Amino acid sequence: MELLEQTINNIQGPDRGIMEKARQRQNILTKPLGSLGRLEELSIKFCGVTGRVHPVIRCKRVVVFAGDHGVVSEGVSAYPKEVTAQMVYNFLAGGAGINLIAKAVTSEFEVVDVGVDHEFSPQRGLVRNKVARGTKNFCNGPAMTRKQAVQALEAGIGRALFADRNGINLLAGGDMGIGNTTAASALFCAYLGFKPEKIVGPGAGLDSKGIQHKAKVVEKALAVNQGALKDPLETLAALGGFEIAGLAGLYLGACERRIAILVDGFIATAAALAAIRLCPAVSEMLIFSHLSGEPGHKMVLEKMGARPLLSLDLRLGEGTGACLAMALVEAALNCYNRMATFERAGVSGKKK
Amino acid sequence: MELLEQTINNIQGPDRGIMEKARQRQNILTKPLGSLGRLEELSIKFCGVTGRVHPVIRCKRVVVFAGDHGVVSEGVSAYPKEVTAQMVYNFLAGGAGINLIAKAVTSEFEVVDVGVDHEFSPQRGLVRNKVARGTKNFCNGPAMTRKQAVQALEAGIGRALFADRNGINLLAGGDMGIGNTTAASALFCAYLGFKPEKIVGPGAGLDSKGIQHKAKVVEKALAVNQGALKDPLETLAALGGFEIAGLAGLYLGACERRIAILVDGFIATAAALAAIRLCPAVSEMLIFSHLSGEPGHKMVLEKMGARPLLSLDLRLGEGTGACLAMALVEAALNCYNRMATFERAGVSGKKK
Repeated sequence: MELLEQTINNIQGPDRGIMEKARQRQNILTKPLGSLGRLEELSIKFCGVTGRVHPVIRCKRVVVFAGDHGVVSEGVSAYPKEVTAQMVYNFLAGGAGINLIAKAVTSEFEVVDVGVDHEFSPQRGLVRNKVARGTKNFCNGPAMTRKQAVQALEAGIGRALFADRNGINLLAGGDMGIGNTTAASALFCAYLGFKPEKIVGPGAGLDSKGIQHKAKVVEKALAVNQGALKDPLETLAALGGFEIAGLAGLYLGACERRIAILVDGFIATAAALAAIRLCPAVSEMLIFSHLSGEPGHKMVLEKMGARPLLSLDLRLGEGTGACLAMALVEAALNCYNRMATFERAGVSGKKK
Repeated sequence: MELLEQTINNIQGPDRGIMEKARQRQNILTKPLGSLGRLEELSIKFCGVTGRVHPVIRCKRVVVFAGDHGVVSEGVSAYPKEVTAQMVYNFLAGGAGINLIAKAVTSEFEVVDVGVDHEFSPQRGLVRNKVARGTKNFCNGPAMTRKQAVQALEAGIGRALFADRNGINLLAGGDMGIGNTTAASALFCAYLGFKPEKIVGPGAGLDSKGIQHKAKVVEKALAVNQGALKDPLETLAALGGFEIAGLAGLYLGACERRIAILVDGFIATAAALAAIRLCPAVSEMLIFSHLSGEPGHKMVLEKMGARPLLSLDLRLGEGTGACLAMALVEAALNCYNRMATFERAGVSGKKK
């Protein structure tokens, strides 16, 4: 609890003075005012988050948290629970979508077991921070104890601190956990007041009957855990998952260390929301990378006032959209840092 | 004319058999069916265009065409005409937006003078294919003669052939030309039947009075050149520009050589439309990279049935959006070529 509290207390939000300087610089570069659109915004935000007027991306890393969900026993997923562990092995072998996208954008990669229902032996690329072998079924009570949720959050904070020691200054977070769109949907309902049938979608591939059942399961979870839903941390413990809490911790840790961090899709947004409820200053620091193909994501982002960078119908999770958006951040910073000014290039300005 | 005709006659469109094989491969990779969304589409299209089931991106290049516009004398641009040549020097010095985005995605870069009103001495990175020192003011008659338009088109085809000889298999095209949103708007009106006031926008930074004037100028150009507007090539000659024709040629040449090519924003879309009117088979081969911040672009793309990949409020031109989208193509192909299959990774499939 000490690390979590200390991290939250240290988060100061973006540096507005530096953002103003960055904005001024954008306006003297050889392009029509504002013509690099969201890439300009992105560079200004990067400056504000990192607290530097000329930040250079040193190293990039995507951290994927994996965990299992007790609620899978209610039949809420199109894939069997074993797939969580199988996909962790796939990550370690370099064969999953996130591995190839990370390679395409030259990002480092690590996977963190915070709660997979499988014992992994020590191996390269795998961080073993298991809190428990999967959450409890939240239809019968809280998914995690408060203590477990804190432990998973602090595991995530730990990964941000480790990344900082490695010189990483652009992070992305990802998730793997069969059943986790159910947990994320429950969190959106609890934090934002949505009705389950508005938010619940097909996840990895449910049909319409499956979706209806999943919405009922979320409704039940909300009723059973009603007593927990006043407190943000209790809510996360009751309805979240180990990988969701781990991701939320990664966001908090990154913001505290002033590392720019990209939020992935549906699951990651639930983690981001938990982080924001634990520490509102985080909300202006996170970069929302993409609009997921999971239908509820659009409403959620709108309600959060977040405008994602990409909209490519991705719904794979694993951090794929966040990692892809690293290429945009890199291009944005390259322009911001290295474009010529009107004066230096001898280019005439706008006519008066 | 011979090169243009020969190129058009050789274009066969995407290979549908190969696209079907690519689609089948996507469906056995370790991810929920379709969960990589538009990245899956992109990889399938890339296979179809290149005619290969396992295409690998060897080298990438962005080719920027520069030309001046006689219509600038009507006061249609927020920037003075000199900026076209000044920006060519900025490109050659590596200080423009496109230079830095090309570097961020590790793409080669070249700039082609097809019609700048300035004499450049020979220098590294500059291709000298000048047709004339700017187009004529199309309010008084055609911007180019038919012969000039063909010459510019063939200059563009030449750049695609050269890229092919260099082993490039992913291209992007860009434009530089003060006044060219006026020319592009006129082409959209002529080819798609839009009214000028629907399409004309601020370009590099006109105010609302300037936009009204610009719409009037386009209206006049359409009336004066009415006789030319039945034939696609005559239309391009009457209302286009040297850099627009050069770009159109690049698209034709790339499709003929089976090189995947990304279309940039507003100006580039006008060039793509010209290429499609000259050779309809091109329409299924081009990859539309982004929705420009120039307001008319959305309507135009919708009418063309094109769905851009990115929407980042870019309105710089120079090929910046197209070049940025190279990162998406690269990620898409990396996943397509190198992701594990369910069988090989031992990952369970969807429950029946």
